[in-house]
Amino acid sequence: MRIGLLTGGGDCPGLNAAIRAVVKQGLGEYGHSIIGFRNGWKGVVDGDVMPLERQHIRNVLPVGGTLLGTARFHPREEDGSMEAVLATLEAERIEALICIGGDGTLHAASRVADAGVKIVAIPKTIDNDVAGTDLSIGYHTAVNIAAEAIDRIHTTAESHNRVMVIEVMGRHAGWIAVNAGIAGGAEIVLAPEEPFDMDKIIKFLKHRHKAHANFSIVVVAEGAHAVPGSSMEYEVQLGKYGEIVAGAIGERVATEIQTRTGFDTRLTVLGHVQRGGSPTTTDRILGSRFGVAAVDAITRGESNVMTALRGEEVVLVPLPEVAGKVKAVPADLLRTARALA
Amino acid sequence: MRIGLLTGGGDCPGLNAAIRAVVKQGLGEYGHSIIGFRNGWKGVVDGDVMPLERQHIRNVLPVGGTLLGTARFHPREEDGSMEAVLATLEAERIEALICIGGDGTLHAASRVADAGVKIVAIPKTIDNDVAGTDLSIGYHTAVNIAAEAIDRIHTTAESHNRVMVIEVMGRHAGWIAVNAGIAGGAEIVLAPEEPFDMDKIIKFLKHRHKAHANFSIVVVAEGAHAVPGSSMEYEVQLGKYGEIVAGAIGERVATEIQTRTGFDTRLTVLGHVQRGGSPTTTDRILGSRFGVAAVDAITRGESNVMTALRGEEVVLVPLPEVAGKVKAVPADLLRTARALA
Amino acid sequence: MRIGLLTGGGDCPGLNAAIRAVVKQGLGEYGHSIIGFRNGWKGVVDGDVMPLERQHIRNVLPVGGTLLGTARFHPREEDGSMEAVLATLEAERIEALICIGGDGTLHAASRVADAGVKIVAIPKTIDNDVAGTDLSIGYHTAVNIAAEAIDRIHTTAESHNRVMVIEVMGRHAGWIAVNAGIAGGAEIVLAPEEPFDMDKIIKFLKHRHKAHANFSIVVVAEGAHAVPGSSMEYEVQLGKYGEIVAGAIGERVATEIQTRTGFDTRLTVLGHVQRGGSPTTTDRILGSRFGVAAVDAITRGESNVMTALRGEEVVLVPLPEVAGKVKAVPADLLRTARALA
Amino acid sequence: MRIGLLTGGGDCPGLNAAIRAVVKQGLGEYGHSIIGFRNGWKGVVDGDVMPLERQHIRNVLPVGGTLLGTARFHPREEDGSMEAVLATLEAERIEALICIGGDGTLHAASRVADAGVKIVAIPKTIDNDVAGTDLSIGYHTAVNIAAEAIDRIHTTAESHNRVMVIEVMGRHAGWIAVNAGIAGGAEIVLAPEEPFDMDKIIKFLKHRHKAHANFSIVVVAEGAHAVPGSSMEYEVQLGKYGEIVAGAIGERVATEIQTRTGFDTRLTVLGHVQRGGSPTTTDRILGSRFGVAAVDAITRGESNVMTALRGEEVVLVPLPEVAGKVKAVPADLLRTARALA
Repeated sequence: MRIGLLTGGGDCPGLNAAIRAVVKQGLGEYGHSIIGFRNGWKGVVDGDVMPLERQHIRNVLPVGGTLLGTARFHPREEDGSMEAVLATLEAERIEALICIGGDGTLHAASRVADAGVKIVAIPKTIDNDVAGTDLSIGYHTAVNIAAEAIDRIHTTAESHNRVMVIEVMGRHAGWIAVNAGIAGGAEIVLAPEEPFDMDKIIKFLKHRHKAHANFSIVVVAEGAHAVPGSSMEYEVQLGKYGEIVAGAIGERVATEIQTRTGFDTRLTVLGHVQRGGSPTTTDRILGSRFGVAAVDAITRGESNVMTALRGEEVVLVPLPEVAGKVKAVPADLLRTARALA
Repeated sequence: MRIGLLTGGGDCPGLNAAIRAVVKQGLGEYGHSIIGFRNGWKGVVDGDVMPLERQHIRNVLPVGGTLLGTARFHPREEDGSMEAVLATLEAERIEALICIGGDGTLHAASRVADAGVKIVAIPKTIDNDVAGTDLSIGYHTAVNIAAEAIDRIHTTAESHNRVMVIEVMGRHAGWIAVNAGIAGGAEIVLAPEEPFDMDKIIKFLKHRHKAHANFSIVVVAEGAHAVPGSSMEYEVQLGKYGEIVAGAIGERVATEIQTRTGFDTRLTVLGHVQRGGSPTTTDRILGSRFGVAAVDAITRGESNVMTALRGEEVVLVPLPEVAGKVKAVPADLLRTARALA
Repeated sequence: MRIGLLTGGGDCPGLNAAIRAVVKQGLGEYGHSIIGFRNGWKGVVDGDVMPLERQHIRNVLPVGGTLLGTARFHPREEDGSMEAVLATLEAERIEALICIGGDGTLHAASRVADAGVKIVAIPKTIDNDVAGTDLSIGYHTAVNIAAEAIDRIHTTAESHNRVMVIEVMGRHAGWIAVNAGIAGGAEIVLAPEEPFDMDKIIKFLKHRHKAHANFSIVVVAEGAHAVPGSSMEYEVQLGKYGEIVAGAIGERVATEIQTRTGFDTRLTVLGHVQRGGSPTTTDRILGSRFGVAAVDAITRGESNVMTALRGEEVVLVPLPEVAGKVKAVPADLLRTARALA
Repeated sequence: MRIGLLTGGGDCPGLNAAIRAVVKQGLGEYGHSIIGFRNGWKGVVDGDVMPLERQHIRNVLPVGGTLLGTARFHPREEDGSMEAVLATLEAERIEALICIGGDGTLHAASRVADAGVKIVAIPKTIDNDVAGTDLSIGYHTAVNIAAEAIDRIHTTAESHNRVMVIEVMGRHAGWIAVNAGIAGGAEIVLAPEEPFDMDKIIKFLKHRHKAHANFSIVVVAEGAHAVPGSSMEYEVQLGKYGEIVAGAIGERVATEIQTRTGFDTRLTVLGHVQRGGSPTTTDRILGSRFGVAAVDAITRGESNVMTALRGEEVVLVPLPEVAGKVKAVPADLLRTARALA
């Protein structure tokens, strides 16, 4: 078989592990040809191909990013790019396509599958909010980086008697904020799942600094927002590409705390470091397992499905069931974060 | 309530996260008293108690080991130690007991529960072979350390054209070997789940070094053993405490490869570094969630159960159902390890 | 002897290693008493003391920050605080003082020494710009964090064909920017030692992206500034405490590059993570050696000196010779950074 | 110019940083050709060349080992290999040679220089015992790995009340043992510079476990040996290649302690993990600076010299002055290790 492969959306650690597994399993187990497309769907539109051989995947397991490149572009019917995708797939005699990506890529994959292309998707997102799977590629590395940053900031907070506010990624779901907050021992975690009330935060901080300690760590997901009508109203601010403006919510929260408590308060915006660098063991294993499973599924004739981790097993879930849905942090995990404050 | 708390068996990273969560949730949410026992069941037999307050758990989240100490000792009816356990619990007016430990501790916990004590267990084992839960405390840190060591050894293997054999922990199950092998890009993984045939290994290595590359990484679980009747027979070697002799299987495998292939072959036995040091983010979160869940369960009146991770949720499973069972690496994961060789 | 001990200025990793060494050597080797002052010079003014015993320094070696606390406050004659310092030292019968700090603390130490107090100083600064010593406590950890962040950002830059601008600390000297830039493989490093010409940077980037690669890493020290009269003029921006405004230079450089090249350009401001977390091996050893050497010097009757690393040896240098001087990055190191672009 | 380049002796992290710097500076600054030889001096004897271009050094900065390969082989007059070296250099029209290696390679380089070849050497050794330079490539990464392993073992020692013996590298000098011991908070460090007396060690351990703590960390350099005539005599044991037998001294020390104190004692032999993996920031910078300096020196016509770090500067030292000498750990550093026990 000639199998196409692309990585779409924002880059993250673990993509190369998946690419490597697709190539190893495709070539070694089945004798398929693996045709990479550069820069996500853009490369499919442009016919920018890169046949993948063993030499391309040597030593890539510990390397972050994606050797295929990626772009935040998705094909649409309106501008003719969907048509271009189908034309390229035909011209390149692609019999099936493996798409590694986040929600946007999965959506596009589902539509391309509707147009008759055999597709297996592999989920990646550092936000961990793809539905239907316990983990997506990239999240585990990101939450580790965030937790390590909180660890570092902890010692400064304590030495200087400060409130340290740390803004982390997480647009629709607070997985990074909640889990990095637990792992780093944060006092307060603001996640999109639970709109916050600044009055309660101020009250908590004043009480804590009076009774227990003179420092605090506040972790804020970029997509956090306030309870409507509460003392500090806040809506998520978007940039020109529809992206959340980095630092906006963090800046606002830090200023509010500084002003209303008088405690020395500082902000750190983690930003791009969360999506780079060598993948953790977990992301390497996850990418490897998903890559092998995707090739197996394609070879068995499956289509319009996504590889997913459920407990200890890798399974397949129908793509239409998961595309467009957000997996929120479960209530008991939010509760644990509060319990350990 | 007066709740007893102990950590038993071998130490590992993440125990302090669980202790901290038990204390925070116990004191903060419910107003319980938490009475620690030093050095596992031994401390219960001896009545060696340490009432736990907030100050004992400050800054312990990132610290490996257990602040309560531990010992490889389990109470038995035969020598009167089971009786001593019950006597201490009564003397200290312990209403319920939280036991953090591996298979030996869980067994003992189940027997103590049979004697009428309310018990909730929390699983820990770097081998990850406790049944009923996706993860046990300590495993994730261990597999990370092993994967990092394989990464390091990779560069030496390649620079010197060597076969590098790495022995890792894993007595009854090969979780560390298989997953660290995948994450570190090992060519061969020997796990207890699949007895190995040295003839095939020699053949594979000779072919690989002739056709593809002039180095190889072989990961061996300490509990790996050979197919009975195959060219290199091997049975697990035990020390005086019933422990597997560190280095025994690794030494044997390395010598066999060196002798039969002529390739320059070296052995590394990871040993104790696998169970020490600061817990990973995953182990901190797991310990924290299990600790909170155990206190909640105790407070609700649950007994003879174990906290368990199933997918994204923490649930309770009956202790008798899991004690004494070994959770093996699933077939698809073993297959992935082979596929990526 | 009764020896006072304080840590002043911004916190950093390695301070606890020095405190631990002072206590171990002071108590163990000589039988001195070590009297800690909380929160730097502020604690001396306020008479806020904490006699240090062995139990205070248990397990602190791997912990960042300072167990004594610190503050950005220095005694002055004008407001009576210098007088208060001398009064406290007399009231507490302090025979000699060990001051761990950066330039401000060293200045103050020198003035207190002029007033007749026996003083030995230990240099710390993550900027590494204290004169007279190859290394100061805290720098090595900071440059490692910055280099690791550049490593992470590298993979994103490459996957997305971007220019990534990273602002790091370094007010008067570019040690972190230059060395993290070399270690992380940055294309451009802007340090205070060499005012930059934006025209040349734009020209270099356009050439590189046309001829060699489609991504670049630009590391900017917070204290970097432009050649006067060049196309992009820039002067360092200060906040209300005289601190450099975090992100100011980075924002300006990123905007300029984006506008004039059209390349997708993103900014990361590392901020407080640079000064936190567990100290590197180098900082632990440096703090330990300086602590032992300071106690030895005090006991021998030395005063108005600073411990310093010169090659492989720890020596003493006169405090007045080094206070107030900035140690710039040497020309050959700046040249190496350029050569490897 | 046509410049030859080789890496000899054991591999270590940072070699690729030096290779990359030689290529970048050689090609970019001067327009030289850089001709790599595979597998150290063996490749020169065999004429196994690999002309190095920019594409060979892409992404190698964070990668351990050496892309040129290496071998523990040195040319000698007796077997004709020295003659073969000169013949290859002439056949390949090599005008000057950059040799990266440890003592054996430096020796050989000095002899080849005596035969009229222009040579600049770059020192590497994880033992850090090359004379004339503060640091050699590879040491800093090794001491970090060892210190991290001690950190990990610390928590196990404490949780189980054990004596943990850790054997690290260091044949003629104890740099790794002493500095990793200080950074990891070891109680006892045995280095080749100070023959040990087992009676004193036993006495110290018994006193400590009685008075202060019930665990201890003992770090042993592989080249450590006993005071002649003392209670436990020990001479360094060599393998068939003249290498020190890994684990020999560690095994002996651990057994002695176990037997004579009765304390539960365990051994960890770090082995090959010490010389692998991604280089630290310090080793990346050192390799980069040495590489640039070597090309500059070659171009200026220098010969029979070695690049060296002295304080903050990279300088050149005459090769005959340093070859064959061992740089021992200075007395004050040994004293610091003892002071912090």
